[in-house]
Amino acid sequence: MKILVVGASGTLGQAVASTLGVHHELIRAGRHSGDVQVDLTDDASVQALFAQTGPLDAVVATTGRLHFGPLADMTPAQFNLGLQDKLLGQVRLALAAQHHLRSGGSITLTSGIVSAQPIRDGVNATAVNAALEGFVRAAAFDLLPRGLRINVVSPNVLVESMDDYGAYFPGFEPVSAQRAALAYQRSVEGVQSGQVITVW
Amino acid sequence: MKILVVGASGTLGQAVASTLGVHHELIRAGRHSGDVQVDLTDDASVQALFAQTGPLDAVVATTGRLHFGPLADMTPAQFNLGLQDKLLGQVRLALAAQHHLRSGGSITLTSGIVSAQPIRDGVNATAVNAALEGFVRAAAFDLLPRGLRINVVSPNVLVESMDDYGAYFPGFEPVSAQRAALAYQRSVEGVQSGQVITVW
Repeated sequence: MKILVVGASGTLGQAVASTLGVHHELIRAGRHSGDVQVDLTDDASVQALFAQTGPLDAVVATTGRLHFGPLADMTPAQFNLGLQDKLLGQVRLALAAQHHLRSGGSITLTSGIVSAQPIRDGVNATAVNAALEGFVRAAAFDLLPRGLRINVVSPNVLVESMDDYGAYFPGFEPVSAQRAALAYQRSVEGVQSGQVITVW
Repeated sequence: MKILVVGASGTLGQAVASTLGVHHELIRAGRHSGDVQVDLTDDASVQALFAQTGPLDAVVATTGRLHFGPLADMTPAQFNLGLQDKLLGQVRLALAAQHHLRSGGSITLTSGIVSAQPIRDGVNATAVNAALEGFVRAAAFDLLPRGLRINVVSPNVLVESMDDYGAYFPGFEPVSAQRAALAYQRSVEGVQSGQVITVW
């Protein structure tokens, strides 16, 4: 398969690219690195990305920023950061990807355990991840008659991210990026659609 | 209690105001009608609203626009309509409301059955409603130590809306606005927090 991985230079993206790269042809995309550059908050940048890639068999996104902070201090603009970046960024990628996938192709997005298990300062993360899971749940039925699939992977906090984020996840059992990457392989090479593939 | 109902002139809002008005003092708000006017997409308008209401015991929102249409034609801007209106509008109201509620006070938002049961052309609705439910799920834990509660009501399609929206809901069992209104009373007068109160 020819697979586009957006966010390929991140902790998770590197592991996903490493796993998928064994048997597939990869195009690695990132904001400032990779084979091609893309800004998922920009329509023109996403259109330019697919003009460069040509037809694909799978598109994977492992990227997106969120706002972390207490509800008491939160502003609508801060909450909107996660909506515009991680949520609408991945949705923008999926909306464009549907027109550049070959029959049988798939889209795999990334949410996170915080959707199901709220953490301190994580209101924006829970809402955004839940929205991504809702998007996938509904979009799968639109894509199904067109021979396309879509799933979302919800990883636990990563072992590799514990130094930075561990304090937010007390008592959570971190998973390796390598283990999380298997869920993306399951989505890309498997048959399911509309699923939240949890890694926890 | 002194209760602010935003969206009080809508089909659902009228029933909610009618139910809550029996035992409580209401302030009805709407974009162009009611005791006070408010535009939930505008920070200054929401701040002005609470400057007019003073301290409250409950805030209820039964409002918000979404984009309906097939995924194949959907643009990021169309998807963002629901993010900015129904999702961020209700979140903006909640973020402001937390600073104007008396101890024991509550916030009640509105999602919808489409969060759990996707419908044709409803990708934006599923994502937005799921995000609102995620917001409430996480925000409840921030509000809990401050003596405040938050819930979201998820109604089925309303009997009163079947002429307009019935074609989107084949085989759904519509509920009366009056029945849906009971869920808001349960949220306002009850003890629960962080709940999705389904009316279906």
